[in-house]
Amino acid sequence: MFTGLSAFPLTPLANDAVDESAFVRLIQRLAEAKVDSITALGSTGSYAYLSGEERSRVARLAVENAAGTPVFVGIGALRTSEVLRNAEQAERAGASALLLAPMTYQPLTDDDVYHLFRAVTTNSSLPVIVYDNPGTTHFTFSTELYGRIAELPGIASIKIPGVPADPEQARARVGEIRTAIPADVTIGVSGDAMAAAGLAAGCDTWYSVIAGTLPAPALRITRAALGGHAAEALAESDRLAPLWRLFAEFGGSLRVIAAIAEQLGLAPRASLPLPIQGLTEEHRARVADVIQELGLDR
Amino acid sequence: MFTGLSAFPLTPLANDAVDESAFVRLIQRLAEAKVDSITALGSTGSYAYLSGEERSRVARLAVENAAGTPVFVGIGALRTSEVLRNAEQAERAGASALLLAPMTYQPLTDDDVYHLFRAVTTNSSLPVIVYDNPGTTHFTFSTELYGRIAELPGIASIKIPGVPADPEQARARVGEIRTAIPADVTIGVSGDAMAAAGLAAGCDTWYSVIAGTLPAPALRITRAALGGHAAEALAESDRLAPLWRLFAEFGGSLRVIAAIAEQLGLAPRASLPLPIQGLTEEHRARVADVIQELGLDR
Repeated sequence: MFTGLSAFPLTPLANDAVDESAFVRLIQRLAEAKVDSITALGSTGSYAYLSGEERSRVARLAVENAAGTPVFVGIGALRTSEVLRNAEQAERAGASALLLAPMTYQPLTDDDVYHLFRAVTTNSSLPVIVYDNPGTTHFTFSTELYGRIAELPGIASIKIPGVPADPEQARARVGEIRTAIPADVTIGVSGDAMAAAGLAAGCDTWYSVIAGTLPAPALRITRAALGGHAAEALAESDRLAPLWRLFAEFGGSLRVIAAIAEQLGLAPRASLPLPIQGLTEEHRARVADVIQELGLDR
Repeated sequence: MFTGLSAFPLTPLANDAVDESAFVRLIQRLAEAKVDSITALGSTGSYAYLSGEERSRVARLAVENAAGTPVFVGIGALRTSEVLRNAEQAERAGASALLLAPMTYQPLTDDDVYHLFRAVTTNSSLPVIVYDNPGTTHFTFSTELYGRIAELPGIASIKIPGVPADPEQARARVGEIRTAIPADVTIGVSGDAMAAAGLAAGCDTWYSVIAGTLPAPALRITRAALGGHAAEALAESDRLAPLWRLFAEFGGSLRVIAAIAEQLGLAPRASLPLPIQGLTEEHRARVADVIQELGLDR
């Protein structure tokens, strides 16, 4: 279950409430595209900004509309007791697995993070994906900590933030993680621009931002890479370079992918939670140009 | 009101619930010590980890037990609508001002942060303290952004993260901020180890972690510095250097000050919100030694 393409849909808001019909459309679109799994309430799904009630409702809607596609649900929160409540709610909603990032306000120690994962794996019967996203959590996992946590019963996969650009170094890095964790724990790459390289370097899965809104090109890359056609996967990723450049230039993928969803009519305008204002008109125009150039609006 | 010593009490937890009697004792202790103001629900007060209900209750208890000492209340949250709800609750509780840090999960732009402060000053009649704490928020204010935000009606003070160690550079830095903001907006130093230097360099107030638990030495430093006896203030701060070194060595002030409060019987054991586990036994023993050496247990 923790291989292939996992698509991370947005959770569009309208007037500070979840736009349930827009969210349901995104989920149905992913099920129809036949992604391997859907991760609701990832960073792209704005989990950190939503209340426990909103998150429970979103998890339910995702499972109900996924047409049998496995749904993973993000349960991260600053306080352990809230993480455990989110895990319970996700389980009740019918999630197939939990995604957990160690959110921080006060910096956390390795022991703090280890015991957080231990609390979740002890309290929930669902498999858990370790979510390493230093750009949002500001927590840095060591390979040794991956190993300690991955040995907890219930840990199924690790979502790593990316791989080195050099193919040999990328393979070495994935190999280094592989030897540190049990054989049944999969490794998933994130950072969409590095996904083809990550899969080519031996990652089992791609935890993908673009797949949540644009599943077709993400599926092309994943199927090619995991089918042994690395060159084809890398060529498709290279073709999307103008999109990756916008991610880098506009401060990350979230604002860009929200602008794309809004432009394609998949989300209402201003669909991100305030204080995140989304892109300026000028930047939206540049996103629209790139989408058209790359034929991603079809 | 935004001058002198503002004390930041802990919000001690016991079994994942606010220990209200311990919190009330801390507040009463601060009122008796005659600090100039109390800031409840600062970073030291674990605001980011508490629910809206818990925060509302804590704000109320602070005001009720402060014996007329002005109480400022931290209202930060990841989502603007939650910040506005916290502001309303704080106003209802009788707070004299609001403290707002731009918490982040997704990195924020300057415009995002400006509009967050604008939303709060537009919606609340209380004065607002701008809380610049890059170690927890990972947002970096420019001096220019201080200026834009400080011009909003209702902004009363800026809590800066510290000053350069060199006295001349510290004076220059405070002067640079002073010229960027309206004359009636005060500047408060935080980072306890730099407080005497900050006050000597022209800061109006000290937003103080140690004052929340150990008001006496913080008052000695503040009264000396603001009374024109900078050398005396710096000498008292130098005397506390072993404590500042523990802050640096043990990853910040929070775990150390919680261990001190626990040791002095002002908070129950394990008073921080999980996943923050607090100091190890070995580190607690070192904290206890320093407290005794410096006579802070009397």
